[in-house]
Amino acid sequence: MRIVIIGGNAAGLNAASAARKTNREAEIVLIESEDKPAYSRCAIPHVISGEIDSFNRLIVYPMSYYRMMKIDLRLETTAKWIDVKERRVGIEYGGEEEVMDYDRLILATGSKVFIPPIKGRELQGVYALRTIADGERLLEVVKRASSAVVVGGGLIGLEMAVALRQRGLEVTLVEMLPQIAPNMLDEDMAQLLQKRLEGGGIRIFTGSRVEEIEGGDRVHSVRFSGGRAEADLVIMATGVRPNTDLAREAGIRIGETRAIRVNQRMETSAEDVYAAGECAEAINLVTGRPVLSQVGTTAVKEGRVAGINAAGGYTTFPGVLNSSVSKLLDVEVGSTGLTERMAEAQGLKTISGKVVGKTRARYYPGAKDLSVKLVFDRETLRLVGAQIIGGEGVTHRINTLSMAIRAGMDVWDLAKAENCYTPPLSETWEPSLHGASEAVLSKLLRRR
Amino acid sequence: MRIVIIGGNAAGLNAASAARKTNREAEIVLIESEDKPAYSRCAIPHVISGEIDSFNRLIVYPMSYYRMMKIDLRLETTAKWIDVKERRVGIEYGGEEEVMDYDRLILATGSKVFIPPIKGRELQGVYALRTIADGERLLEVVKRASSAVVVGGGLIGLEMAVALRQRGLEVTLVEMLPQIAPNMLDEDMAQLLQKRLEGGGIRIFTGSRVEEIEGGDRVHSVRFSGGRAEADLVIMATGVRPNTDLAREAGIRIGETRAIRVNQRMETSAEDVYAAGECAEAINLVTGRPVLSQVGTTAVKEGRVAGINAAGGYTTFPGVLNSSVSKLLDVEVGSTGLTERMAEAQGLKTISGKVVGKTRARYYPGAKDLSVKLVFDRETLRLVGAQIIGGEGVTHRINTLSMAIRAGMDVWDLAKAENCYTPPLSETWEPSLHGASEAVLSKLLRRR
Repeated sequence: MRIVIIGGNAAGLNAASAARKTNREAEIVLIESEDKPAYSRCAIPHVISGEIDSFNRLIVYPMSYYRMMKIDLRLETTAKWIDVKERRVGIEYGGEEEVMDYDRLILATGSKVFIPPIKGRELQGVYALRTIADGERLLEVVKRASSAVVVGGGLIGLEMAVALRQRGLEVTLVEMLPQIAPNMLDEDMAQLLQKRLEGGGIRIFTGSRVEEIEGGDRVHSVRFSGGRAEADLVIMATGVRPNTDLAREAGIRIGETRAIRVNQRMETSAEDVYAAGECAEAINLVTGRPVLSQVGTTAVKEGRVAGINAAGGYTTFPGVLNSSVSKLLDVEVGSTGLTERMAEAQGLKTISGKVVGKTRARYYPGAKDLSVKLVFDRETLRLVGAQIIGGEGVTHRINTLSMAIRAGMDVWDLAKAENCYTPPLSETWEPSLHGASEAVLSKLLRRR
Repeated sequence: MRIVIIGGNAAGLNAASAARKTNREAEIVLIESEDKPAYSRCAIPHVISGEIDSFNRLIVYPMSYYRMMKIDLRLETTAKWIDVKERRVGIEYGGEEEVMDYDRLILATGSKVFIPPIKGRELQGVYALRTIADGERLLEVVKRASSAVVVGGGLIGLEMAVALRQRGLEVTLVEMLPQIAPNMLDEDMAQLLQKRLEGGGIRIFTGSRVEEIEGGDRVHSVRFSGGRAEADLVIMATGVRPNTDLAREAGIRIGETRAIRVNQRMETSAEDVYAAGECAEAINLVTGRPVLSQVGTTAVKEGRVAGINAAGGYTTFPGVLNSSVSKLLDVEVGSTGLTERMAEAQGLKTISGKVVGKTRARYYPGAKDLSVKLVFDRETLRLVGAQIIGGEGVTHRINTLSMAIRAGMDVWDLAKAENCYTPPLSETWEPSLHGASEAVLSKLLRRR
């Protein structure tokens, strides 16, 4: 049996490893167009910032891992076409084409950068950031630059703005929507975050469209509605789109989200073809509807499920809440499930509670603010989403709340949730559980 | 309506506040034998250690809070007897006795220190630590002392040993049982913790009985099976017992745990008499059996439920997992639910998984070790307990797992749990969720 995996990053590597653990005999071919084995894409901004001293540290496993696992890793190799009837893939390496048969195929083609047609986007000094190679090119420029504009206020844009600021650049961020981090936060929470970032020296313009990237050969400034900023470099953090070209051309069904449609075993519409990671749709655990999931935690889990199934095992992937977290300067920001705005867009009415608490006992040195917003379904009072901005401990607070969403817990369950406490590490009443749900209960009682 | 509350600390204060919010008219009398309003008992070791600079910081609310809430706080006042038929309490203040009628009575009498009959326990320099007054006396001595013995390796004993070590004393801890932290950890995890504490300069003797506290007027050493240690002071951290004297004498039913038996509304066997906090029994959410719960988080929640119900509202307390966490030197240790040993003692067979992972991406500077043990019911594979020892983020990892226990989640749910990830704050596969449950799944697969 030969399992061919197209794409050797988070989803592809986990698919290959899981397939090997499931099936000791199968031939496993991992096709990757870059010249490096899998690495942590999420960490690129942290190398740009200087927190991590080398891109090489981001490589997940050395080449010896692939040899040990008998994974036939083909770097700098590109899949050109798939024939799902004949079960063949056309691949290219060094200008040579090869046709490879497969018994099982896993598509882990990820996303591709989306750059809107802004005038001047082709100038030197304009970067999109997806690969380590992109990062390496950028890092050279950053060291000589003194100003930058980041276009796009999603998580990647924010992380890049922070990274450049930490390198000492004057940084301006321009976001078209009325708020930053629209996939994570409601506008009220986004404003809180924006203030903290502005306090850290990042200029932020929301509701602002980039009109032109100006320069000769090289960029020297960016003009946008509301202003103009000098820029030795420009980062286009304008989002990514599922990379589905191969699948689409092969007649594999694409879903309403424009990613590859899969079932819970990560099977596509074509027999023995699986998809995993950002190129595949996921089911939102709150709405039951397909969504994109552009976080590494989904990719590794889906990859694993695809790998086990492709190798003859059986396992399923339940779906996502798209939990995410980031550290921006000294602020941690995290989110899970639906924001109020996302919920309303799905026709869900919500009731929400907000609270500002402390990360530790308030008398304990170093206790930091923690702002929490919990979003509940208005009828069932079940938790559907959570947003937290604070100084420490946001990751696992979000994980607790995503556990609660998955378990179908309601506002009463949270108000009575068990928690552990010691003054140096937490508060007796945990703001992200009791505080925010009490705020909702107060609202409900006032309505009666 | 008059609500009388006996005991003004965690449970009593929360009962009084909740009663006031539920009922604006009721007279609320809060009787406290100490000379201070409610304070954070858990933080006393952190003042001893020097982390917090004054005991005064531990006071939860200033006196103005009690006036604002119209809570009639009677300090240095002792309840002497209860008559549940006549609905009266006998109280004493400054040698004067007063008889007070009540409509509702809440017992929040907490625990009392238990000191076994060890020879020499009456010597000067031997301390039990329960109140701020105890702490103040101890702190004076600590500043002049150079060696100490702590008797008892439960959480309080460990926290005190660490506090004294942080003050520069030579510290020896003696525990009768074969392991430290027996209420939180299994022996394998306790050994791990013990090594870390010994590495921090604390001498620890387990399975060792104190034979004599030696000295003239003042203690100068402690003799125990296995050794002898000099001691300018001795801390007796030999546990606490529910303070149920008043209730028992009034004929109120005491449960099998020797705490006051209550239902989910915190009602005792006597009409209109409630109990909350360490003097009351709680139901263990895994076993459904009554247990003692000696953590502040339980006390405040039970107090609140008792207060709301006593004031004419309606609410219930579901039970406990006795989640607890502590910071000992640079080690965080946390636990929820049942250890393997506790489970076996209840007749439950278990299967457990252990893993050592990292608190952050392994390539991110400052990533620390995290040791996790998850305990599952052997039949249903539901999570029944969790133990974690690590460098950071233990509190909310434990909260996530206690949420999972309460939701009845099994090993598959945890292996597929949603998590959020960013290199500076977490790992892609979370050791406390995926890592430890995969360890169990591997065991299961090997058995097949």
